[in-house]
Amino acid sequence: MLNYIHDIPTKLYFGEGQIKHLDEILRPFGKNVLLTYGGGSIKKSGLYDKVTDILSQGGYTITELSGIEPNPRIESVEKGVDLCKENNIDVILAVGGGSTIDCSKAIATGVYYEGDDLWQMVVEPHGVLKALPLVDILTLSATGSEYDNGGVITNLKTNEKLGNSYTFPVASICDPTYTFSVSKYQTAAGTADIMSHIFEGYFSRTEDSELSDYIAEGVLKTAIKYLPVALKEPDNYTARANLMAIASVACSGIPAYGKQGTGWPCHAMEHELSAYYDITHGVGLAILTPRWMRLILKKDPSCAWRFARFAKNVWGIEGDDEQALALAGIEALEKFFEESGIPKTLTELNITDEHFVEMAEHANAGGYLKHSFVALTNEDIVEILKNSL
Amino acid sequence: MLNYIHDIPTKLYFGEGQIKHLDEILRPFGKNVLLTYGGGSIKKSGLYDKVTDILSQGGYTITELSGIEPNPRIESVEKGVDLCKENNIDVILAVGGGSTIDCSKAIATGVYYEGDDLWQMVVEPHGVLKALPLVDILTLSATGSEYDNGGVITNLKTNEKLGNSYTFPVASICDPTYTFSVSKYQTAAGTADIMSHIFEGYFSRTEDSELSDYIAEGVLKTAIKYLPVALKEPDNYTARANLMAIASVACSGIPAYGKQGTGWPCHAMEHELSAYYDITHGVGLAILTPRWMRLILKKDPSCAWRFARFAKNVWGIEGDDEQALALAGIEALEKFFEESGIPKTLTELNITDEHFVEMAEHANAGGYLKHSFVALTNEDIVEILKNSL
Repeated sequence: MLNYIHDIPTKLYFGEGQIKHLDEILRPFGKNVLLTYGGGSIKKSGLYDKVTDILSQGGYTITELSGIEPNPRIESVEKGVDLCKENNIDVILAVGGGSTIDCSKAIATGVYYEGDDLWQMVVEPHGVLKALPLVDILTLSATGSEYDNGGVITNLKTNEKLGNSYTFPVASICDPTYTFSVSKYQTAAGTADIMSHIFEGYFSRTEDSELSDYIAEGVLKTAIKYLPVALKEPDNYTARANLMAIASVACSGIPAYGKQGTGWPCHAMEHELSAYYDITHGVGLAILTPRWMRLILKKDPSCAWRFARFAKNVWGIEGDDEQALALAGIEALEKFFEESGIPKTLTELNITDEHFVEMAEHANAGGYLKHSFVALTNEDIVEILKNSL
Repeated sequence: MLNYIHDIPTKLYFGEGQIKHLDEILRPFGKNVLLTYGGGSIKKSGLYDKVTDILSQGGYTITELSGIEPNPRIESVEKGVDLCKENNIDVILAVGGGSTIDCSKAIATGVYYEGDDLWQMVVEPHGVLKALPLVDILTLSATGSEYDNGGVITNLKTNEKLGNSYTFPVASICDPTYTFSVSKYQTAAGTADIMSHIFEGYFSRTEDSELSDYIAEGVLKTAIKYLPVALKEPDNYTARANLMAIASVACSGIPAYGKQGTGWPCHAMEHELSAYYDITHGVGLAILTPRWMRLILKKDPSCAWRFARFAKNVWGIEGDDEQALALAGIEALEKFFEESGIPKTLTELNITDEHFVEMAEHANAGGYLKHSFVALTNEDIVEILKNSL
């Protein structure tokens, strides 16, 4: 079991109606609020009206940044930073999913960034930065951005989609009813993202960090139980609540405490797909993950013990043959994604092998994937991408 | 799944050698440190010298409060508050187990308490209070005081042992090697305490807070796996590390998020035993818990589903008969405690039924046990205590 530091200051207000705390959360920070959101689904759902009513009644001044993209772009960060500076913003209120929150984190820190080019802030390695306080109201169970300090920003000019650490939200309002209107496609993709956050830490060489593994398996079992319910009954509170609860934990680092880092291979590869083709992150992950699993199992059969545990503890598959168990676990996952209505191939998303070689170079540029559960070469990555066509 | 607010600001520095962060943790608060500890085991182990060396080299002024009791008493709180006021203490550094940390929490808030009688602060219901910053170095995996805001203080004059909320530590240094020297008896008792923190939330009427239940079961399985290892090999890092990791989570509230409160019946009963007889908390819990389980299962057989889940998911017992499974799970627990060397009866601790009626009245005074998994009357409590003789 390796050393770790647990340091997540974010408060989570979980459950129906927790928006009642919004005014008390914002009040200590000041009256000038930058309200950030995406494509307007919060207007359709009525959440926009609810939020602006609370802010108006509380005497807040609202500046708006709308239209934040599903893979949020550096231009939105720049726009947000300008708005904060022009309007003396005291606190940012992000209403949306991971994209809106990620973008808002970069804005919150961008206000204090001293360089000329905000893209440099995205590119440079750094720790948690000085930031405006950020509060969010979550509308999608997926990225876990509501309970971590990370954000992923895209630059379509350079075909780059890069993760970095910015700031933790001071508080996140997690009301499962706000996800009732999320489409089947996005619900499934979001759940694939949650599960991938677990896989990225679960498939590690560390064997003796038991609680982390049990939490990881608990997140996966909860996803497997409740995604089908949420797809069938979008208004099922229990299903939506369980998916929301696991989303925040999955990307927090907690399920990998005490474990060796892995470089997050599937995220590294998927970010390339999204950067080049602007596809839904969770869909890319769901397509890549089983192919990655099969390749590393073939490349290094000695890692089968871990897949066998996955098959047993997560899927309840019984048996003694580690290789057979390992394959059965991967098959079960593939079937689960398929039954959730997620596309099975990159071809269905009109992706060809045109850029695979450069994608592999980018994905492996940091050298992190050498330290994966099973080390990946550029050739391995190209093979995984080709197997995903 | 019920609403909850997650709000635990404590940083955990987990792993061997994390004391290297001590100076950077304390520095922002000031130079006057109240160093609190218990009976001197930290002097034997060398930890006292290590801590005072770091403080001296950092230029801190140390005031000491030693001799904090295993069931910390109001007199120690009073003494600590006086020392803080006399020495303009900036930060409290507690080095020890739950008793030292609990007492230090009450001292940290007692400094700002405006009443004349500190015992009133212990008795009065209140939320988290204004407090001096508290940092701790944990030496026993048990109460979870390093990661919650609660403390339990004893008044031997009135035979009262009362829990309340005070303040969260700002940081806890959790180095498993500091527990290598913990005796078998205290190791087993501490693990029983950890497991009891889980039982108090796990046995609830809420069925649909999946992640909480999986975390709870993960804590229990980790305890069951590693307590025997730690008893056999006190210096086994993996065993000590796993026990330390689960201790902090078990009492944090996290394993019961989304679940109906239960009033913590075994803790309510055990606090009476400790208040009257000053016994080791975890030992009292280990004796009471199986008796409590048997009584409520008999009183309300409809609660067997929950015990059956416990038997299956925690002990891996198979079967279809809920009642049989339920009983088998309780038996497995009883056997586990017995094999860990914990006394099986109150009689072995020289406790008689002399005070059982008044203990039951006290334990049930708040009316919380009416809302237990299975409601307990005073008569039920007396029966559980008698069955524990």
